Amino acid sequence: MTKRIHNFNAGPAALPLEVLEEAQRDFIDYKGNGLSVLEMSHRDKVYDNILKDAEKDLKELYSIPDNYTILFLQGGATLQFAMIPLNLLADGRAGDYINTGTWATKAIEEAQKLGKKANVIASSEDRQFTYIPKEFKLTPDAAYLHITSNNTIRGTEWQSYPDTGSTDLICDMSSDFCSRPVDIKKFALVYAGAQKNVGPAGCTIVIIRNDLIAKSPKNIPTMCNYSIMAKEPSLYNTPPCYSIYVIGLVLKWLKKNGGLAKMHEVNLQKAKVLYDRLDKNDFYRGTVDKDSRSLMNIPFRLKNEALEETFIKEAKAAGMIGLKGHRSVGGIRASFYNAVPMESAKALVAFMDEFEKKNS
Amino acid sequence: MTKRIHNFNAGPAALPLEVLEEAQRDFIDYKGNGLSVLEMSHRDKVYDNILKDAEKDLKELYSIPDNYTILFLQGGATLQFAMIPLNLLADGRAGDYINTGTWATKAIEEAQKLGKKANVIASSEDRQFTYIPKEFKLTPDAAYLHITSNNTIRGTEWQSYPDTGSTDLICDMSSDFCSRPVDIKKFALVYAGAQKNVGPAGCTIVIIRNDLIAKSPKNIPTMCNYSIMAKEPSLYNTPPCYSIYVIGLVLKWLKKNGGLAKMHEVNLQKAKVLYDRLDKNDFYRGTVDKDSRSLMNIPFRLKNEALEETFIKEAKAAGMIGLKGHRSVGGIRASFYNAVPMESAKALVAFMDEFEKKNS
Repeated sequence: MTKRIHNFNAGPAALPLEVLEEAQRDFIDYKGNGLSVLEMSHRDKVYDNILKDAEKDLKELYSIPDNYTILFLQGGATLQFAMIPLNLLADGRAGDYINTGTWATKAIEEAQKLGKKANVIASSEDRQFTYIPKEFKLTPDAAYLHITSNNTIRGTEWQSYPDTGSTDLICDMSSDFCSRPVDIKKFALVYAGAQKNVGPAGCTIVIIRNDLIAKSPKNIPTMCNYSIMAKEPSLYNTPPCYSIYVIGLVLKWLKKNGGLAKMHEVNLQKAKVLYDRLDKNDFYRGTVDKDSRSLMNIPFRLKNEALEETFIKEAKAAGMIGLKGHRSVGGIRASFYNAVPMESAKALVAFMDEFEKKNS
Repeated sequence: MTKRIHNFNAGPAALPLEVLEEAQRDFIDYKGNGLSVLEMSHRDKVYDNILKDAEKDLKELYSIPDNYTILFLQGGATLQFAMIPLNLLADGRAGDYINTGTWATKAIEEAQKLGKKANVIASSEDRQFTYIPKEFKLTPDAAYLHITSNNTIRGTEWQSYPDTGSTDLICDMSSDFCSRPVDIKKFALVYAGAQKNVGPAGCTIVIIRNDLIAKSPKNIPTMCNYSIMAKEPSLYNTPPCYSIYVIGLVLKWLKKNGGLAKMHEVNLQKAKVLYDRLDKNDFYRGTVDKDSRSLMNIPFRLKNEALEETFIKEAKAAGMIGLKGHRSVGGIRASFYNAVPMESAKALVAFMDEFEKKNS
C-alpha cells in the first residue's frame, strides 16, 4: 500500500489520493493515445478536450454566468497583482484595496510600483492582521475594490463578502478557491493560484467579467494583457498543460464529491475539530479573532512558545508535515485544504493532546 | 507493454520513455516521503534538492560559468520577449534584432509595443524566412543583439552563432536547447521554453550573466524583473514545481546518455535520415536552404501538394502524430527533438517511401 503522510502544507499542498491514482495510471499512455499528457500538443484535440472540460467543470461548480471568461494563466497571484492595475487602472483612476496581510500588501505595493493609484481604504495592520476589517468607505470613482479572500499566513478569512454597490469587486481567492460556494456575480474578477485547493503549482485561474477584458491597453506586456489572453482563452501561447490537466481531475473529484456546498460542510467540520481543541484550554491558543477565523489555514501558538520547535519536530516524526508557521510570523500553522482528509485533522488533534500530556 | 506512438510534435513534444517511467513510479510517493512532488512545498528540503539538482545538472551539461545565474521562470518565451527590453533597454538604448521568422518577429514587436527601440538589422523575410541571414551590421551602442537559434515553424537553425564583439548576444534557444554543445560564454542571456527538448510546458529556462541582473528598473512588474527573480533564484514565489522536476529528470537522462556532444551526434544522424530522403528525388522537397537546415524541425512539401492532407491522415493511422505543418505555413513538418528515437525517424522515412510508391 502507498504510504501517505498527513500533509498540512500551506501550498503547494495535498491533492486527493484518487486524483493522484488516476494521473499515475494514465501517466505514460493517456487513455490509449500512446503518449503522456506531458507530451501532447496544446493544439491537439485530445488536449483541447482536457482544457475545455476543466473550463466546463469549473463553470458548473461555481455556476459562473456566461458573461465571464475563465483563463488558465501563469505567473501566480504575483502576476495578477500587476495585471489588475495595468489593465484596469490605465485610465488614471484609482483602485481601492483592503489590506489584510502579506499578500494584500504585495498587491498594493505592486500597483504603486507601476505608477498606479492604489488607495488603502481599510487595514488590519494595527493588530498584526489578526482580523478582517468591518468598516470601510469606497473612494468615489474608484475602478475597483480589491480584497484577499483568505489570508494564508495569518489565518483570517472573509466570512461573507462586502457589498460594493456599483464598484467592481476583485478578489484574490488563492487560498480558499473552491472551498465553499461563492456567488461569482458579486465579483468583476476572481483569481487564484491553483496550488492550494485545486491543483499543482504553475497555473493561476482567472474568472473575469467580459466587459473588463475590453479595457486592456496595448502598451503592456502581452502576457499581462487580459484582452490578448482571453481572445483564444488560455491558448495564446503554450499554457501550463499538465497543471491544467491535474486541475481538471480535481474539479471532477469535487463534482463527484458533492460540489462546493458539500466541500464547505466538510471544511467546517474539519476546522471545528482543531478550533475546538484550541479553545479547550490555554496550552494552545488560536491567534486570530474568532469572527475572522479561516477554514483553510489555522495558525496557533503554544502557551510556552519555547516548546514550538519540539512540537513541529515531533509532529514530523509522527508523520505530519507542513506545520511550521510562515517564516514571517513563526508559531504553528495547519492548512486544511479540500484534499486534507478529516482523519488528518483528527490525527493532529490527537497528537496535540498527547503533546500536552507529555509537556504539562 | 505500453503503447508508444511516433511523436513528431513541435512542442509540447516527446519525452524520454525512461524519464516518464521514473516519474510514474515515483508519482504518488516520491522516494518514500509519503507524498507526490505535486504536493510538496517549494520551501521544503526535499523539493529544494530537486531544484538545486536541476540547476547543477544544467550547469554541468553546458559548462555554465560561475558568473551566470540559472532561472526557472513562467510565461514562456513570450514573457522573455517583454522582459528583455523592459530590463535591458530601460536606459533608452536600442536593441538589435535579426528577424528569422514568426518568433523573432514577435520578439521585435513586443519590444516596440513597450515603447523600446528595436532595430531589425537583418531579416530573411524576403524569401519567407527560408534561410539564416549571413550579413548584418550592429547598431553602434546597441544594448544587445537578439537572435532566434532555431526557427520551429520554418525549420531553419543557426549553424554557428555570430560574433558580436563587445555587444551582448541574446538568444532564444527554445527549440534547440540542449540539442548540441554551445559555448554559453558567447552569450549574455539565453532563454528557452522547456516544452520542446527538455521538459513539459509551463517552465522557461533563463541563463543570464550576472552583470545584466543589476540593470532591472524598479517600475516594472515583479514577475518581469530579472533582479527580483535572481535574488533567490526561481523561488521569489511558487515556481512551476512539477515542470522543473521533470526537466531535472530529463537533464539527468541527458548526462547519462553522453551529454550534449553525444546528443548532437545522434541528432545529426536522425536528421540525415530524413534530409537524405528529401534530397533523393522530387516527390518530397525540403523548404529551406541547405546551409540553414534545422536538426530539430524539418518542414517539407509534396510535389503534389494536394496529397499532403492524405499523407498526414495516413501517417496518423500508421501511428505517427504531429506531422502537420504550422497553420501559418502549411505543408508537413517533422520535429526530431532529443527524445524522438532513431526508430521514429526511420519509421517516418519508410512510410514516406511506401506513400510515394502508392501515389506515383
